[in-house]
Amino acid sequence: MSNYKKVSIAEDARTELHDRLNLTGAEISINLLPAGTSVPFVHAHKQNEEIYAIVKGEGTAVIDDERVDVKAGDWLRIAPQAKRRFFASAESAIQYICIQVRQNSLEGYTVTDAVL
Amino acid sequence: MSNYKKVSIAEDARTELHDRLNLTGAEISINLLPAGTSVPFVHAHKQNEEIYAIVKGEGTAVIDDERVDVKAGDWLRIAPQAKRRFFASAESAIQYICIQVRQNSLEGYTVTDAVL
Repeated sequence: MSNYKKVSIAEDARTELHDRLNLTGAEISINLLPAGTSVPFVHAHKQNEEIYAIVKGEGTAVIDDERVDVKAGDWLRIAPQAKRRFFASAESAIQYICIQVRQNSLEGYTVTDAVL
Repeated sequence: MSNYKKVSIAEDARTELHDRLNLTGAEISINLLPAGTSVPFVHAHKQNEEIYAIVKGEGTAVIDDERVDVKAGDWLRIAPQAKRRFFASAESAIQYICIQVRQNSLEGYTVTDAVL
């Protein structure tokens, strides 16, 4: 079996990569919210920290009732227990990547995990 | 302490997020290779699977001696033991995100990890 898998992503409302890439350490979604829309619910997590990368556009993350303005180039780490909800701005769609990983699961990384 | 942290990323050659975002389940880097350049070494990993997202431009990933063309919108999962090296194309820079997570570390995700 090959040691890699590749997919090309279209600009869908939501694309989930776990099953498409056979991921074992993360779930990753690519999300597009049209201008003036939002994720329709607030959520938190049991074990997973979430890392968000804003790819295009701008909007607002509401995190534990705090409004955090976000725009392309911003990255956020959100703790599992935080209550979160994402909104596109009224004028602009927002495209963002959401990476779920189990909190405290990383051991070595980069130099301490690499084999050269 | 706040349940989130945010940073805004410039187009540097390489930005590493683990320490800047206090990540505990991943290391994430944003990388920019100018046209005609490459990462100067081949590497593999002990425990970590790597997920690559091509953000801009195009190039080639050499994975276990196989040449894999990559362009903006492509995502790859590479197993820890695979030997890998990334090249920008001769004509175009390539910007990519690299996500390191410990293989087999994810337990529940999305519906099975969410609290609504």
